[in-house]
Amino acid sequence: MAGDGSDQRALQYEQTLMYGRYTQELGVYAKEEAARLRESGQRRSVSDRSRTLDLLEYDKGRCAKCRRSGYPYVLEGPAQDFISVCTVRCQKFLISRVGEDWIFLILLGLLMALVSWVVDFCIAICLQAQKWMYGGLDSNVFLQYLAWVTYPVVLITFSAGFTQILAPQAVGSGIPEMKTILRGVVLKEYLTFKTFVAKVIGLTCALGSGMPLGKEGPFVHIASLCAALLSKFMSLFGGIYEDPAMKETSLIGMKNESRNIEMLAAACAVGVGCCFAAPIGGVLFSIEVTSTFFAVRNYWRGFFAATFSAFIFRVLAVWNRDEETITALFKTRFRLDFPFDLQELPAFAVIGIASGFGGALFVYLNRLIVQFIRKQKAINRFLMKKRLLYPALVTLLVSTLTFPPGFGQFMAGRLTQKESLVTLLDNRTWAKQGIAEEFEYIGHSAAWKHPQVNVFVTLVLFIVMKFWMSALATTIPVPCGAFMPVFVIGAAFGRLVGESMAAWFPDGIHTDGTIYPIVPGGYAVVGAAALSGAVTHTVSTAVIVFELTGQISHILPVMIAVILANAVAQSLQPSLYDSIIRIKKLPYLPELGWGHHEKYNIRVEDIMVRDVRYITLNCCYRDLHNVLLTGHLKTLALVESAESMILLGSIERAQLQSLLSQQLGRPRRLEFIRERAMAEKKRMSVISDPGSEDGSHRASQEVRFQISTEESTFSPIRPLPQKPLKPALKRPSVVERPTEIPTSPNDNSGIALKNLFCASPDAEGLEKNNNVESPSSPEHRRPSKRVRISVVDDGDVEDDMTIREIAEWEEMQLDEQVNFNNCKIDPAPFQLVERTSLHKTHTIFSLLGLDHAYVTSIGRLIGVVSLKELRKAIEGSVTVKGVKVRPPLASFRDSGTSSSENEATELHKLWDRHKSMSLPREHTPSESDEKSQ
Amino acid sequence: MAGDGSDQRALQYEQTLMYGRYTQELGVYAKEEAARLRESGQRRSVSDRSRTLDLLEYDKGRCAKCRRSGYPYVLEGPAQDFISVCTVRCQKFLISRVGEDWIFLILLGLLMALVSWVVDFCIAICLQAQKWMYGGLDSNVFLQYLAWVTYPVVLITFSAGFTQILAPQAVGSGIPEMKTILRGVVLKEYLTFKTFVAKVIGLTCALGSGMPLGKEGPFVHIASLCAALLSKFMSLFGGIYEDPAMKETSLIGMKNESRNIEMLAAACAVGVGCCFAAPIGGVLFSIEVTSTFFAVRNYWRGFFAATFSAFIFRVLAVWNRDEETITALFKTRFRLDFPFDLQELPAFAVIGIASGFGGALFVYLNRLIVQFIRKQKAINRFLMKKRLLYPALVTLLVSTLTFPPGFGQFMAGRLTQKESLVTLLDNRTWAKQGIAEEFEYIGHSAAWKHPQVNVFVTLVLFIVMKFWMSALATTIPVPCGAFMPVFVIGAAFGRLVGESMAAWFPDGIHTDGTIYPIVPGGYAVVGAAALSGAVTHTVSTAVIVFELTGQISHILPVMIAVILANAVAQSLQPSLYDSIIRIKKLPYLPELGWGHHEKYNIRVEDIMVRDVRYITLNCCYRDLHNVLLTGHLKTLALVESAESMILLGSIERAQLQSLLSQQLGRPRRLEFIRERAMAEKKRMSVISDPGSEDGSHRASQEVRFQISTEESTFSPIRPLPQKPLKPALKRPSVVERPTEIPTSPNDNSGIALKNLFCASPDAEGLEKNNNVESPSSPEHRRPSKRVRISVVDDGDVEDDMTIREIAEWEEMQLDEQVNFNNCKIDPAPFQLVERTSLHKTHTIFSLLGLDHAYVTSIGRLIGVVSLKELRKAIEGSVTVKGVKVRPPLASFRDSGTSSSENEATELHKLWDRHKSMSLPREHTPSESDEKSQ
Repeated sequence: MAGDGSDQRALQYEQTLMYGRYTQELGVYAKEEAARLRESGQRRSVSDRSRTLDLLEYDKGRCAKCRRSGYPYVLEGPAQDFISVCTVRCQKFLISRVGEDWIFLILLGLLMALVSWVVDFCIAICLQAQKWMYGGLDSNVFLQYLAWVTYPVVLITFSAGFTQILAPQAVGSGIPEMKTILRGVVLKEYLTFKTFVAKVIGLTCALGSGMPLGKEGPFVHIASLCAALLSKFMSLFGGIYEDPAMKETSLIGMKNESRNIEMLAAACAVGVGCCFAAPIGGVLFSIEVTSTFFAVRNYWRGFFAATFSAFIFRVLAVWNRDEETITALFKTRFRLDFPFDLQELPAFAVIGIASGFGGALFVYLNRLIVQFIRKQKAINRFLMKKRLLYPALVTLLVSTLTFPPGFGQFMAGRLTQKESLVTLLDNRTWAKQGIAEEFEYIGHSAAWKHPQVNVFVTLVLFIVMKFWMSALATTIPVPCGAFMPVFVIGAAFGRLVGESMAAWFPDGIHTDGTIYPIVPGGYAVVGAAALSGAVTHTVSTAVIVFELTGQISHILPVMIAVILANAVAQSLQPSLYDSIIRIKKLPYLPELGWGHHEKYNIRVEDIMVRDVRYITLNCCYRDLHNVLLTGHLKTLALVESAESMILLGSIERAQLQSLLSQQLGRPRRLEFIRERAMAEKKRMSVISDPGSEDGSHRASQEVRFQISTEESTFSPIRPLPQKPLKPALKRPSVVERPTEIPTSPNDNSGIALKNLFCASPDAEGLEKNNNVESPSSPEHRRPSKRVRISVVDDGDVEDDMTIREIAEWEEMQLDEQVNFNNCKIDPAPFQLVERTSLHKTHTIFSLLGLDHAYVTSIGRLIGVVSLKELRKAIEGSVTVKGVKVRPPLASFRDSGTSSSENEATELHKLWDRHKSMSLPREHTPSESDEKSQ
Repeated sequence: MAGDGSDQRALQYEQTLMYGRYTQELGVYAKEEAARLRESGQRRSVSDRSRTLDLLEYDKGRCAKCRRSGYPYVLEGPAQDFISVCTVRCQKFLISRVGEDWIFLILLGLLMALVSWVVDFCIAICLQAQKWMYGGLDSNVFLQYLAWVTYPVVLITFSAGFTQILAPQAVGSGIPEMKTILRGVVLKEYLTFKTFVAKVIGLTCALGSGMPLGKEGPFVHIASLCAALLSKFMSLFGGIYEDPAMKETSLIGMKNESRNIEMLAAACAVGVGCCFAAPIGGVLFSIEVTSTFFAVRNYWRGFFAATFSAFIFRVLAVWNRDEETITALFKTRFRLDFPFDLQELPAFAVIGIASGFGGALFVYLNRLIVQFIRKQKAINRFLMKKRLLYPALVTLLVSTLTFPPGFGQFMAGRLTQKESLVTLLDNRTWAKQGIAEEFEYIGHSAAWKHPQVNVFVTLVLFIVMKFWMSALATTIPVPCGAFMPVFVIGAAFGRLVGESMAAWFPDGIHTDGTIYPIVPGGYAVVGAAALSGAVTHTVSTAVIVFELTGQISHILPVMIAVILANAVAQSLQPSLYDSIIRIKKLPYLPELGWGHHEKYNIRVEDIMVRDVRYITLNCCYRDLHNVLLTGHLKTLALVESAESMILLGSIERAQLQSLLSQQLGRPRRLEFIRERAMAEKKRMSVISDPGSEDGSHRASQEVRFQISTEESTFSPIRPLPQKPLKPALKRPSVVERPTEIPTSPNDNSGIALKNLFCASPDAEGLEKNNNVESPSSPEHRRPSKRVRISVVDDGDVEDDMTIREIAEWEEMQLDEQVNFNNCKIDPAPFQLVERTSLHKTHTIFSLLGLDHAYVTSIGRLIGVVSLKELRKAIEGSVTVKGVKVRPPLASFRDSGTSSSENEATELHKLWDRHKSMSLPREHTPSESDEKSQ
């Protein structure tokens, strides 16, 4: 946080300003730095340290494993067996109770309902405070203005600053990130506790300011954070996540990942559900927004959790005496017997189509603002320096314009978002031209009535001003969503059309007997659903609207308008979330439409990376070490030999790191010493011991668990007076440190290994350690403890090797052949052949949520395709103009643009090429045959 | 239909009685028959004929292709080019208009709305007629009884007989079949026009009888039929289905199949949507009931079509003056301000849990009845003989019990299903014990009031009687669903609980000021949703209920009850549809739960079929011919050679058939004759023609299209006085026919080929042909037309080969090496390695909707896994008791039963085995290493 770390932070700020921008640059940076250092001689030590990101995984898994399995194994014989059996039993019982999905979902629902209610409560207090201040200063307009403006500026600035400092990932909606995560891409930093705190507090402040921002998107993120943290927390109770008995199989990983994804999907539903008290709409909206393929198996989780959450959320309101019983959030009271006339449907259709254009415009405007701010170098540099200036300026502008005695009087400026929505959904008609009696505006509705100005003008001004204000406000780097502002604008637009209709047909359209006047509130409902549906490209806003208003009588108009709005908006612009994904450059795999025939030309061989990192079955540890220093994929290919390149399976990086650490670890060295001593002894007395084989085996087992215990209990076993690694990574000038070779022989637990592990704990664990132990003490305390341990563990062996001896021993160890016996090997990694089409690859990747797949030719590994290459290939062949994430309704747009002839020949060319290449002995088809097709 | 074909029909009847039973036995039977015949000497001729089922595919595709592309190619040179370009342009335009999804969806929605409305209208008339008869005969109870009973018996018997005769596939609900079809298994016979007619008329009659049957399941099927027929119809206009420019790539197949599946999924939504005027609920219900993985991309299709359909369906009601405007089907008028008290929630939860048990019981009872009837050999044989006796008996029993002056007076027997539901959802309370004034039963509600008996008794009797009646009635072999009866029973149960609550708390539970009496109608809504949710294992019945009643105020009680009901029902029994899938033995792939760890032991190598049908790159046509006669998979593997077995790709069976037909076809023979003549000529005059190469090429192209034209225009080119093949197949004694070798040399278009093709058109096409041409005429007409064709096509060449010569020529041709140049080869079929786990295989199969996948080891083809093997493997390891299709909520049931230790060792064993087998040169790990893990 101090010193030269600020550069890095400034960089980060730049990345997260305007939604932030996802980058893998930190890793790249570290890698380059490492390469530079490697060249300058300090080959292993520092470069290894730069592998932090990859090693984090390893250490975590290790610690969690050891924490539980480490203890009993210190005992020996039957007692050990008994205790271990008991432990396993207990664990299993805990798993069967705590690990059950429905308990998890209930907890999640409960937690989120509480969070939602508390946030709502705080927001309400904040808004009341502003009103109170504004109302109390009614003697002086200037003071009133100051109070009106300062309050939101302070809140927004605080929110932006707080989020910036604590977790810049909390900025923005969070739905794009969740979409990416649910796709299978791990964005760890988006699911931490710090992000949770930053998001909740930042959101409360941002919404408390009264700016046109929403809580829906952030709540999706918050719910996911909750789920991620809750599952971490529950795994402490021996949860389902790390069943030690299953650690040998690679399937547990797959299972857990899949379970996590399922839980996150349910969490997204909970987020929407507890935000609007709309369980069904929440489930559907979250599916539409975050998933490409949805497992119906997972359906009930969302419903279960979202229902429970919505229930608790509303029950809290009842308990708090806000409501008499459980009802909808924005309850409407339209008449049931004749909700609308058949002849009003064209008006609803018009709302739908106009909303479609409006939604596309909103997305475009939003992106335009971000791009404009980014492009303007001068502005950008200035804003970067004064980080909180941009939010403050925007807030100032918006709140100035809504100042009720000022321009705000023409656009119902004094109403909060919620109040506006309630008034807009009112079932009375505001403008009754035909009838003499003027409608009396009660309560908040009075805000819409201006003595000089028509209610239509107020509505139009409201729509226009709120439109750009919302588009602008959602670019502020605070946690905020755009759903609710858009929803309100839509409602206002619907109201406008409804009021116009009511003015046009004062007695309703219906001709048979009874007079059924037009209900403008129904139009508002339709408009709200249509515009929010257009912006988010979802149909389920219809359901959300029904659940929000508690009435479903307008189902057909709403559905028609939403579908029309979607059709129009999808053919013009991507959804807001897809737009943000593009702006933030999140690693999301775009959709590949059926229409894009030209894609069929591309084969996997055209996009795959041919330079695959692999290990061979008979490689030595040195190769392993070298391979681990390069590459970025989570797994490494295991091939038979470098000549045959026959793919045998894939191994997780963490597994290899553990192999390497075992080989170079101190216990092995101690064993080596013990064996040396034994051999010495044997040379002395020639009597052979028949139990020695068994004994040494037991010793080796012991030893292995010892190192585990050591590492987990005293996590960073660092002989050096080390600072947390993260700052070290950021600083390019830490070259001199590795030369400080430790002097105490007790601490030399493997030089090469240490270099790998000194970078081990992740940022969080590191800071926890810093909090627990004072930064200066570890050197003093650790040796003493280690001595105790080594007395228990090592028996009579004394580690008396010198540094040179250790280095020599390590070199020797590195030359040994790797023993893969204890390694989880996935025997069947996903394979493609080089002729697999891009289309098929895309389908497989998106359906199975793959990260990478190996490309094989006749069993030989010839390449690897990761999400990155696939994304590039898809995006590369799409036209440049703007975002081109293909929307589902796009068949309205691009059907009939196939270039299929081209493709057919291309395919044949490829096929022929293959034939001539790999099967030269095959008879070459004559030219006439070729043509006769 | 006459003679010994009746045996087959009897067999079919047995299969379809009690839901019917899906079998592939016909194919098996034919195969065995073929084998027997082959042994007795008539090797090629008859056995080829038995390949009907496989060849159907080929011919259809061919005909459709030729119908459009055949004509222009008869011309030559630039004219041909021009016309073909024009045709392609026109086609493209047509495609871009007609082929667009939304036009298709609108047509589908419109059609289904009309069908639904007409069916409803007819049902209403039928029911009115019954009431009228019953009412008119009120002088004599016996006559009344006769009328009351005879009417439904006649209708049901007619429905059962009609369905039996026209299309036995129309029996039952149709949802299980749609689930199977959407899984990717082709059940062609379920999507024919005959089935459509049978289903619609059968359903109308069945529901018109007043039996407790529903229209929802059948409507899902009818909508899918509509979609399938509509897409066939639209492809006549040069639809998107067969773009000739793309015929070279195998992707078009994939694309079309995928599009078809998407359209069928949308159709299912339309089915539910137009049945209940519930678009949202329809989409969700159809997703839950039919899909495993749902492509969100496809979401809008369902919404679009279902909304349009529901809209038209309701508009028709408005136009017919049934309604004043568009409202819900069973509109309720509960109060909005205080729908229910918080303290009533336990009662709702009780309804949910009880409904869960009830739903499971219903499924169990239904299955029990089917199994009982099936097991009782004596009954079964008797019922089989008198096919319509079972429906008649069941109807007689049910209608006797509901006879209003008889037992029916105690169970509101005189109400139709719709009337019962309307009265049950009434917002008034029936039993007001506390208040003096008796509730006056107006209209239909009076049926629930019996002078001697309490309304509670009436309700209980209604529930109990209807429960078993519905379970029994849905086993009648007529088109019928169980959703609506279950829905009504649920509503009655909810009403019962509601009335009890109202009796218990006459002034409501609420204590603060205002009295809010309990609304039993709300309980009925909750009960209906819960019971139907429990039977179908869906949550979306909640949404259907809201859309049906037009009120959403009870959302939380409904959701809670539905979720609880699902939790209970899923842990006890499979859903009704899964139960029927099992009863009917439909080829559906069951779910594999995460809980079943023991499955992880099974690898693909344990379940794959090692005896793979393959063709080699240098095989001759004879091999092709032999391979085509065996096996059942849609595609065949292409390997490099029998020794190397390196998998190069897969070829569709149809492609190979087309290759073979080209090789042995008459045009080629004519060409051969022409060349022979040419050679003769050349021998005469030694002058060489430089253009001959090109000319012969063009000729060959021409010729190829000619045979196409021929076949498509006069589809069954059979020189023999043939009868439709289907009966022939059924008859085991047609051995003598193939010996009738045709005498006219004009007709000898390939003996071997003919044997393949005489079995070509599928049952439908066949019967169409039978309708168009009188069975005796073809021989007379065909030769003349063929002569005309041969004049146009063959130019000056005369087919003067004798039968012996032809046979010789064909033998020669069969020995030639196959030229795969014109063949669509899928270069990257789905491959698994032999160590792929069952779990992964299952995931890939269900996600990608695969039919089969090849198993390779280092690029060598070693086996094939099809859906069948996978299904066996999954079912085999599941306990036997009843159906065990894993429900999603089953984590309530079987968590904590993992056998994971076992698995770990198993994996290691496998891995070691693999190592020792395939990598013998690798160093063997020492025993101590092995143990030290």
